[in-house]
Amino acid sequence: MTPERHTIAAPSAAALPVRIADLVPGMHARGVFVVKKKVCREQPGGHRFLLFQFADRSGQINGVLWDGIDDVSNGIAAGDLAHVQGDVQTYQNARQIKVQRIVPAEPGGFDLADFLPTSSQDLEALYQRLLAAVHAVRNPWLRRLYSEIFQDPEVARRFKHAPAGKGWHHAYVGGLLEHVLSMLEIASLILRQHPEADGDLVVGGVLLHDIGKIEELVLRSHIDYSDAGRLVGHLVQGCLLVGRHMDRIEGFPAEARMRVLHMLVSHHGAVERGSPKPPMTLEATIVHLVDHLDSQVDAVARVVGGPRNEDGWTEHVKLQDRSYYAGRPSAASDGSND
Amino acid sequence: MTPERHTIAAPSAAALPVRIADLVPGMHARGVFVVKKKVCREQPGGHRFLLFQFADRSGQINGVLWDGIDDVSNGIAAGDLAHVQGDVQTYQNARQIKVQRIVPAEPGGFDLADFLPTSSQDLEALYQRLLAAVHAVRNPWLRRLYSEIFQDPEVARRFKHAPAGKGWHHAYVGGLLEHVLSMLEIASLILRQHPEADGDLVVGGVLLHDIGKIEELVLRSHIDYSDAGRLVGHLVQGCLLVGRHMDRIEGFPAEARMRVLHMLVSHHGAVERGSPKPPMTLEATIVHLVDHLDSQVDAVARVVGGPRNEDGWTEHVKLQDRSYYAGRPSAASDGSND
Amino acid sequence: MTPERHTIAAPSAAALPVRIADLVPGMHARGVFVVKKKVCREQPGGHRFLLFQFADRSGQINGVLWDGIDDVSNGIAAGDLAHVQGDVQTYQNARQIKVQRIVPAEPGGFDLADFLPTSSQDLEALYQRLLAAVHAVRNPWLRRLYSEIFQDPEVARRFKHAPAGKGWHHAYVGGLLEHVLSMLEIASLILRQHPEADGDLVVGGVLLHDIGKIEELVLRSHIDYSDAGRLVGHLVQGCLLVGRHMDRIEGFPAEARMRVLHMLVSHHGAVERGSPKPPMTLEATIVHLVDHLDSQVDAVARVVGGPRNEDGWTEHVKLQDRSYYAGRPSAASDGSND
Amino acid sequence: MTPERHTIAAPSAAALPVRIADLVPGMHARGVFVVKKKVCREQPGGHRFLLFQFADRSGQINGVLWDGIDDVSNGIAAGDLAHVQGDVQTYQNARQIKVQRIVPAEPGGFDLADFLPTSSQDLEALYQRLLAAVHAVRNPWLRRLYSEIFQDPEVARRFKHAPAGKGWHHAYVGGLLEHVLSMLEIASLILRQHPEADGDLVVGGVLLHDIGKIEELVLRSHIDYSDAGRLVGHLVQGCLLVGRHMDRIEGFPAEARMRVLHMLVSHHGAVERGSPKPPMTLEATIVHLVDHLDSQVDAVARVVGGPRNEDGWTEHVKLQDRSYYAGRPSAASDGSND
Amino acid sequence: MTPERHTIAAPSAAALPVRIADLVPGMHARGVFVVKKKVCREQPGGHRFLLFQFADRSGQINGVLWDGIDDVSNGIAAGDLAHVQGDVQTYQNARQIKVQRIVPAEPGGFDLADFLPTSSQDLEALYQRLLAAVHAVRNPWLRRLYSEIFQDPEVARRFKHAPAGKGWHHAYVGGLLEHVLSMLEIASLILRQHPEADGDLVVGGVLLHDIGKIEELVLRSHIDYSDAGRLVGHLVQGCLLVGRHMDRIEGFPAEARMRVLHMLVSHHGAVERGSPKPPMTLEATIVHLVDHLDSQVDAVARVVGGPRNEDGWTEHVKLQDRSYYAGRPSAASDGSND
Amino acid sequence: MTPERHTIAAPSAAALPVRIADLVPGMHARGVFVVKKKVCREQPGGHRFLLFQFADRSGQINGVLWDGIDDVSNGIAAGDLAHVQGDVQTYQNARQIKVQRIVPAEPGGFDLADFLPTSSQDLEALYQRLLAAVHAVRNPWLRRLYSEIFQDPEVARRFKHAPAGKGWHHAYVGGLLEHVLSMLEIASLILRQHPEADGDLVVGGVLLHDIGKIEELVLRSHIDYSDAGRLVGHLVQGCLLVGRHMDRIEGFPAEARMRVLHMLVSHHGAVERGSPKPPMTLEATIVHLVDHLDSQVDAVARVVGGPRNEDGWTEHVKLQDRSYYAGRPSAASDGSND
Repeated sequence: MTPERHTIAAPSAAALPVRIADLVPGMHARGVFVVKKKVCREQPGGHRFLLFQFADRSGQINGVLWDGIDDVSNGIAAGDLAHVQGDVQTYQNARQIKVQRIVPAEPGGFDLADFLPTSSQDLEALYQRLLAAVHAVRNPWLRRLYSEIFQDPEVARRFKHAPAGKGWHHAYVGGLLEHVLSMLEIASLILRQHPEADGDLVVGGVLLHDIGKIEELVLRSHIDYSDAGRLVGHLVQGCLLVGRHMDRIEGFPAEARMRVLHMLVSHHGAVERGSPKPPMTLEATIVHLVDHLDSQVDAVARVVGGPRNEDGWTEHVKLQDRSYYAGRPSAASDGSND
Repeated sequence: MTPERHTIAAPSAAALPVRIADLVPGMHARGVFVVKKKVCREQPGGHRFLLFQFADRSGQINGVLWDGIDDVSNGIAAGDLAHVQGDVQTYQNARQIKVQRIVPAEPGGFDLADFLPTSSQDLEALYQRLLAAVHAVRNPWLRRLYSEIFQDPEVARRFKHAPAGKGWHHAYVGGLLEHVLSMLEIASLILRQHPEADGDLVVGGVLLHDIGKIEELVLRSHIDYSDAGRLVGHLVQGCLLVGRHMDRIEGFPAEARMRVLHMLVSHHGAVERGSPKPPMTLEATIVHLVDHLDSQVDAVARVVGGPRNEDGWTEHVKLQDRSYYAGRPSAASDGSND
Repeated sequence: MTPERHTIAAPSAAALPVRIADLVPGMHARGVFVVKKKVCREQPGGHRFLLFQFADRSGQINGVLWDGIDDVSNGIAAGDLAHVQGDVQTYQNARQIKVQRIVPAEPGGFDLADFLPTSSQDLEALYQRLLAAVHAVRNPWLRRLYSEIFQDPEVARRFKHAPAGKGWHHAYVGGLLEHVLSMLEIASLILRQHPEADGDLVVGGVLLHDIGKIEELVLRSHIDYSDAGRLVGHLVQGCLLVGRHMDRIEGFPAEARMRVLHMLVSHHGAVERGSPKPPMTLEATIVHLVDHLDSQVDAVARVVGGPRNEDGWTEHVKLQDRSYYAGRPSAASDGSND
Repeated sequence: MTPERHTIAAPSAAALPVRIADLVPGMHARGVFVVKKKVCREQPGGHRFLLFQFADRSGQINGVLWDGIDDVSNGIAAGDLAHVQGDVQTYQNARQIKVQRIVPAEPGGFDLADFLPTSSQDLEALYQRLLAAVHAVRNPWLRRLYSEIFQDPEVARRFKHAPAGKGWHHAYVGGLLEHVLSMLEIASLILRQHPEADGDLVVGGVLLHDIGKIEELVLRSHIDYSDAGRLVGHLVQGCLLVGRHMDRIEGFPAEARMRVLHMLVSHHGAVERGSPKPPMTLEATIVHLVDHLDSQVDAVARVVGGPRNEDGWTEHVKLQDRSYYAGRPSAASDGSND
Repeated sequence: MTPERHTIAAPSAAALPVRIADLVPGMHARGVFVVKKKVCREQPGGHRFLLFQFADRSGQINGVLWDGIDDVSNGIAAGDLAHVQGDVQTYQNARQIKVQRIVPAEPGGFDLADFLPTSSQDLEALYQRLLAAVHAVRNPWLRRLYSEIFQDPEVARRFKHAPAGKGWHHAYVGGLLEHVLSMLEIASLILRQHPEADGDLVVGGVLLHDIGKIEELVLRSHIDYSDAGRLVGHLVQGCLLVGRHMDRIEGFPAEARMRVLHMLVSHHGAVERGSPKPPMTLEATIVHLVDHLDSQVDAVARVVGGPRNEDGWTEHVKLQDRSYYAGRPSAASDGSND
Repeated sequence: MTPERHTIAAPSAAALPVRIADLVPGMHARGVFVVKKKVCREQPGGHRFLLFQFADRSGQINGVLWDGIDDVSNGIAAGDLAHVQGDVQTYQNARQIKVQRIVPAEPGGFDLADFLPTSSQDLEALYQRLLAAVHAVRNPWLRRLYSEIFQDPEVARRFKHAPAGKGWHHAYVGGLLEHVLSMLEIASLILRQHPEADGDLVVGGVLLHDIGKIEELVLRSHIDYSDAGRLVGHLVQGCLLVGRHMDRIEGFPAEARMRVLHMLVSHHGAVERGSPKPPMTLEATIVHLVDHLDSQVDAVARVVGGPRNEDGWTEHVKLQDRSYYAGRPSAASDGSND
C-alpha cells in the first residue's frame, strides 16, 4: 500500500457518499464501487488499456484507464471493491469515468451488502412483524418450532438480509423477508375465507417455505448461488434446517413433522417445477398458490415498471418468453377526466 | 294422464318437500326427483324391470320398478323430472326405492335449478355487492362498460345462477358469483400492495373474465356444457359478449378495448391451458393469478372436506392425478389443548 | 425544408424508380428508401458519423454519412421513408452508399406498401375470385354472412393487402389473399373426395379463418404486429369481426353461428398451438388441415428456394429447429437425360 | 369330422351367402362367420354354456350355445372361421343366434379377407391407376425403382389388400391403396401449385411411404399387427424393402437413394411421432403433410358418420381425446330452402 | 372367541404350512392367509354371501362363503390375516375355496412379512457384504459416516427387509438390499473404467441413494407407502436421515456434506422425475445411471419372465405403456443345434 | 505450384512434426495444419489482411497474414490442409502465428485423420477383441451374421476409425470401437446377473447398435455428418446394412431377424429420442440401458475433466442444460490423510 493509496482509502467525509447515480459529465468522481467487469484491450499501435464496469446500489457506469495498467492489472479483479478516482466524461452517448487512480478497498472496511440492491423498508421492523406472527400461533408444538427457528441468532441475522431470488422476484437484500410478509397478508385473507384450513400450519408454511434460501444464495458483488445451493438447493436445505430443529424438540408429533415438511417439499407446486411431491394437503396447496401469486406479481410489476420501448413494450423476458406491455402514457384512461 | 297420476302430481303441501337425504329404509317415499339414469334389465326368466338413479339437491338414491314398465318406458327419460312414489329398502348395503308409481312432472311446475347443488348465500345480495364494485370504478369508460353489461337484465338473470364450472371448482348454482366476489377480495388486497396496477382494469378483469360461462354452461338435470360451450368456449364467448357492449359505446377508447379483451383472452395463464395469449400486462397477470388461486383453493377445500378413507386420504382426483391427505382426527394439533 | 431538399423530393421522372437491386459500385444513387436502421458511431479521434441500412422491395443496402450528421440526426428515424442521394461504393465486399444528402420523404407522397415485399399477382383479380366463391355458396344465411363481410369496403381494402404472417409463410403484401385462394383449391378437392362435409361451411372457414390478421398485422417499414394483435390476437379478433356481422343479420341461425365460430376458434388445430378448442367438426378439421398444409408447404418452399451453402443446406430455421436440404445441382436427376 | 358337419360345410348355393346384417329375429340362420369371442359361463345351478360373438364383413351378432358345449369347446377358438346354424332371437334388445350346431370351417375353403371390412372399390382397377402413376415418372432411375417394386408379384398381391391402419384411418382391406391414391390426387394439386418441387420424388414418396404396412399388419379375424410390425415397425420395414430394391439396381444414384429413403424415414413428420428424422426436404414435407391431411380427414369423416347421441355428439375418441359434433338434422342449413 | 375357533387357530404342525400354490381341486384346505379382498354379494332371492381373495407368498386364490356370513362380516377386514378352512373347487376355470370356517389370526402369532414376496437370498449375508464395502472406503470422514449409519441397529433392522419399490422393481422383502448390492457390482466396473471418479463417494451414493425407502415403504398385507412416504418421499427422508448423522460427526467437511447430499437429491436423474436437482457431478451421474440400469433391467426381466399370451407377448405394462415380447419357445435359436 | 511452394511442401524431416501444442512465442513455426477458419478484414485505411484459425490434433492457434493476401485468397478454404510458415507472437494474451507463407498441402500427401482427435488405444488390437466376442457367440445364425458383417473389409476399415458421435461422447477417431468394447464389459456383467437374457443377442445388439455411424459421420477437418447421415440417420442406415447381410444368408430365421433389428430400432430407448419403437424385449432393454450408461458417463467424465472456473464449475453444457461441478482441489478428501 502506498501512502497515496491511503489518501484515497480515507476520503474526506464531505466527499462521501458519492453515488454513481449522481455522477454527471464534467464532475470529478471519487468513490468506492464494485468492479463488475475488468477487460484488457489493445489499440492498433499496441498500446494496452483497461475497460471497467463499476456499480453501486444506485446504478452502473463504465470506466477507462489509459495509463499505468500494470499497477492495477493483478491487484483488482471482477467482484472486488475499489476506490476509484477520475473525471466523468461522455462516450458514445453514455457517461464514463476516465480513471486516474484505482486501488483495492480494504476487505473489512466496507459491507458488500451496501453495494447490492436493498429493500427500502426497515428490515428490523419487518422481522418483528414476522416474530409477532410466530407468537400468535396457537398450536404449542408448532409455536415452539417456529420460535426456536426464528429466534436462532444465525437464522435471524441471515433471514433479514437474504434475497428471495437471484433475478426474477424480490431479488434484493431483504427481499425474502418482504416476500414472506406479503404472503402472510394474502394467506390471512385466504384463511378468513377458508376457516377449514389449519392456520397454524399455513403460517409456518409461509414463513419456512423458502428458509433454505439463506443457504442457497450468497451476497457477493451480486446475488449468487452458493455451491451447496446449486447442488442441494433451497428446498432440501430448508427441510434439513427445519428437520434439525424438530429433532431437538423432544416429543415433537410425527403428524406435525410430516405436514410441515410436506409444505416445504411441495411448495413449487409440481414435480416438473422441482418439488419432489406436489401439494397434497389443503395447507400446502394454499402455501404454494400464495407463493406463486406473490412472486409472480412482484416480478411482473418490476418488469413493467422498468425500461420500455417507445411503443410501451418491455424487453423480452427470457424466463417467461414474452415481452410485457407497459402501455403508453394516456392508455386506458383516455377521457377519464371528463 | 290417469286421475291417480294427477293425485301424485299435486301432492299435499304437508308432504313436501321430501329430500332424498332424509329417506330411510322402512319409510314410504313420495317426491319429485331428477331421473339421472334409467336402464332396462332382464331376469334369466325373461322378466324385464327398470333400474333408476334419482337425485335432488340433497343427494342420490337408486330405484327399481318391477312391474308395469311398459307404461313408463317411453314417458320418462334420463334428465327428466318425475313424481316418484314407493317404499325405501336396503339393497347391497345401500338405500333404494322400490318404485310403485312414477310419472313425469309437468315442465312448468318445477324449477330445474331447485334440483341442483346451489350456493348457500343470498345471490341477490351478492349481486348488489358486484354492482357496488362496478359503481366504484373511476374511469368513466370502464365504469360505463361494466355497468351496461351487468345491468343488462339477461346478463344479470343468468350471472346470478351460473356455476363457475362443471365439476372442479364452484360447481353449483351461484358458484360464478361467489367465485368472482371472492376474487374481488383478494384482488383488492393485491391492489393495495401494488398501487402501480390499474385497479379499474383489474376489477373489470375479475368481474368479466368468466362471463362467457353464462353461455358455456347450462343447467339441466346436472350442470352441463352447451353445444356452443363445447365448440366455442367461454373465453371466446365472453369476448364476443364484452365486444358487443364495447361496440355500442360510441368512442370507446381503443386502448381500453384492447386491455380489457386481453384480460379475458389471457386469463387461463398460458397457451397450453387454452389462452390464445399469455398474460402480457400487469393487470392481466393479477387477474389470472387471483383466478388460479381462488379456484384451486376452493376445489381442494371441497375435495379435502369430502369423503376420505380410514387413513385420512381422499379418493384419487383425476384432474390433479393425486389423492389429498385430509388427515386423521387429532392430526397436527396434538397437545394443542395445554 | 430547404429548396435543395425540394429538388431531391421531386426527382425527375427519368431517374425513377431506382431500385436498390439495380445499384452497382460506381453509380450515383438517387431514390426513396425505407430507413431500416440508423446508428451513430464515433471514430477514435472523436469524429461521429452515421451508419444506415436502407431497403426497398427489391433488396437492402448499407449507407454511411460522414459529415453533417447533426442536420439529419433527429429528423430521420428507423422506419421512416427518406430521399437518399450518394455514390455507390464497395466496403468489406459489400455495396454501400456514401450518402451525400438524406431528407425525409413527405408522409403522403409515398405508399409504405410499395416498399414491402409484395405478391406478384393481380390482387384485385384474386379478390374477385374470392367473391365468386362467396357467391357460389348455396346456404342463404352463410352466403349473406360471407357477402356482407367481404363486400364491406374496409375489409376489402385491408384484406387485399394483408400478409398472412410476419415471417414464416406468405409474409408479403397480398399474402393472405394468396393463401386463402390456394387453400380454396385444395379444399375443393377434399370436398369432392368427401361430399359428406358441408361445403358451404368449409368455404367460409377457409375465407374467414385468418380474417383477424387484417387487424393483427400492420404494414410499417416492415410487416409487424399491432399492439392489439399481440395482446388479443387474430383468432379472437377474427371472431369479434365475424360475430359483429352475425349480430347484424336478424335471425341468423344459432347452429350456423356456432359452427362458423368453431372453425375460427379451432383453426390452429390444438390447444397448445393457440386454439382454445381443437377441431370437433368435420368441417373444422378440414379447414385446419388445409391451412396447415398450405402454410407449411409455402414456407418450406421459400426456405428451400432461398440461400443455401455449398453443400446444398439452407440456414438453420429457428421455428422448425432444422436446416433444409435443397440439394446439389444434379441431385436425384442423375441420368435422367439418358 | 362327422358327416353331419360335412352337411353344414357344404350348404346349398341357394342359402348362401347369409350376411349377418340380413338376419332378423324369427329367421333360421346358416352361415360361415368369424368367431370373434368365445366365453364359457356357468349358471347358478352349475350348468355351463357358451357365449359367442360372430362377425362377417356386414356386421356382428352374439350367439349362445346351451347344450353340447364339450363338443366344441376345444375345437373352435377366437379367430377361427366356423359354420354356424341356429335360430335368431332377441335378447336384451339385441339379436342373438341360439346356436344349434357350430363346426370349424376348413382352412382352405374360405378367404379370411372376405370376413373383414373391405373397400367398396375395385382394387384391381385402383392398382392399375397406381401403376399408371409409376409409368408417368420421368426420372428413369426412379421410374425403374418404383416399377420393380410395384410389379413384384408379392408386393402387388399384398399391397392390393393391405389396410392402412388397424383402427384409426382406412382400416379395411384395400385401405392402403385407397389412401395412397387419394394422396396422389392431393399431391398432384400441390405439385401444380409448387412446380419447384420434384414431382417424381413426391409421387414415389406418396406410393412408398407406407409400403412397410404390407408387413406390419396382418389379416386375421381382424386387422392386427404382426410381431415384426410391433418390434420393427412399418417405417423401418418399408426402408428395408425399398433399400433391397435399390441394391438390385446397379448404379442407382446415391443422391436419389438418400432422398427417397428420407421421405420414408420422415413421413410421420416429427421425432415424437416416430420418425427418426423430421422432413428436411420440400418433397418430404409435402409427402408428410398430404399423408397427415388425407388420413385425418378420412378418420374424422368416419367418426362423424358413425354413431352419435341424440344431441349430435359422437362417442369419445380416445386417440384424439375428444368427441366430435356431427350435428342435429337441420343444423347450419336452416332456411336454406327459402 | 369360540373353542372351535381356537381349534382352527392352532392347527397341527403336520398340516402346516399349506401354501396356496399347492392347493388343487378336491383337496381340503387349512391355512393362514392374508385376506386381500372381501366383498358382500346378494343373490336374486336375497340370500347374501361373501367373496374373498386370499394370498400368501406363494400366490392367490379366491374364496366363497355361502352361510353364516354375519359371524365373520365384521370380524375380518381386507388386510387381515385369517385362518381359513374349506374345500378346493373349480369355478369359471379357476380354483376357489368353498369356505367352511374363517376366523382372525391372532396379531402376534404370525409375522406379516412371511406373507409377502421375499428375497430368496440370505439377507444377513448380503448385509455383511454391504458392511464390507463400507469398511473398504478410504476417506475417513466418509467411512465414518457410512459406518455410523449402517451400524445403527434401527437402520440395519429395517434396511435388511425393505423392498426397493411398491410394484415396479425389486418389490419384495429384501429387495432394497439386493438392488444396492447389484448396483455395487456395476459401479465397481464403471469405477475401474473411470478411475477419475471418486470411488468413495460413488460407493456411498449407491448405498445411501434409496435409504429413505426404509421410511417411505411399510410392510402391511402388501408393500405400501406410509403417509410420510407419500407426503415427504424417500428422497427427502433419506437426506434428513443422512443429514442427521452428518450433524453428529463434529467437523464433518462441508464439501463432503454437499457432495453426498447431492447424490441423494439428484439420483432420479431429472427434475421431471422428482429430483429437485439433476446430477451435476461425475459421481452423481454414475449413481443415477447405475440405479436406472439396475432397476429397469430387474423390472423388465420380471415382466418378461411372467405371464405371456400364446403369441409370446406379456400383458400391457401401464408404467411403460407397452407390452414386452417374451418370445416363442424356439425363438432366435432355430438351428442352434446344428 | 511454384518451386517455392515445393520447398515448403517438402519440409526437412528434422523439422517435423511441429505440433501446435509445442509452439511458443519467439519460435519460428513450420508445419501442416488444418485451416479451420479464414476471414478477410479491412483496416480503417483500406488495407486488407487475413485472419486464420489453424488446428491439428494437439490444439489450435490463430494466425494473421498482412501482405500478399490475393495470392492465397482463393487457393485455400476452410477445411483444407495447408503448409504454414511464420513467427509465433503474442496477441491479446494468446499465441498467434504471423504468417509468412501459406500454401495448400497436396491432397494425397496427408491423412486427414491425423489432424483429428484420436483414441489413444491400439485400434487394431481393440478390433481383435471385438472379433473374439463375435467368435464366442454360440447361436450359429447369429455368429455367422456378426462374422460376415465385421469381416467385411469395408466395414472393418471404417469401424476402426469411426467416432461414436460428433460432439457429446466418444467424439474422436476410434471412439465407436472404444464405446462398443466398453459396453461389452458392462453387458457381460449384466448377463452374469441376468442369465435369463439371451447373451448372443445382447452381444450383437452391443456390437451393431451404432454401426450406421460408419455412414452417418464423416471425417473432414472435423467430425461431421454426411448428408445421408442427416437425412436418413445412423439408426436406419444401420438397419439397412444389417438387413442386407441377413438377406444374403439363406434361411436366416425370421425370429432372429426381427429380434436383432428390434435392438437397433429401439436403442435410443424412446420414441421422443428418435427410436421408432421403444425397447420391447429384455435384450433390447439391456442394450439401450448399457449404451445410455456408457455414453453418458464418458461424456460427463470428459466435461468434468475439462476446463473449469476458479470455483470448480465447468462451462454450461448446452445439451444437458447445466454446468458440472468438478470441485476444488481438496474437495471431499479433507482429512483423508490423517
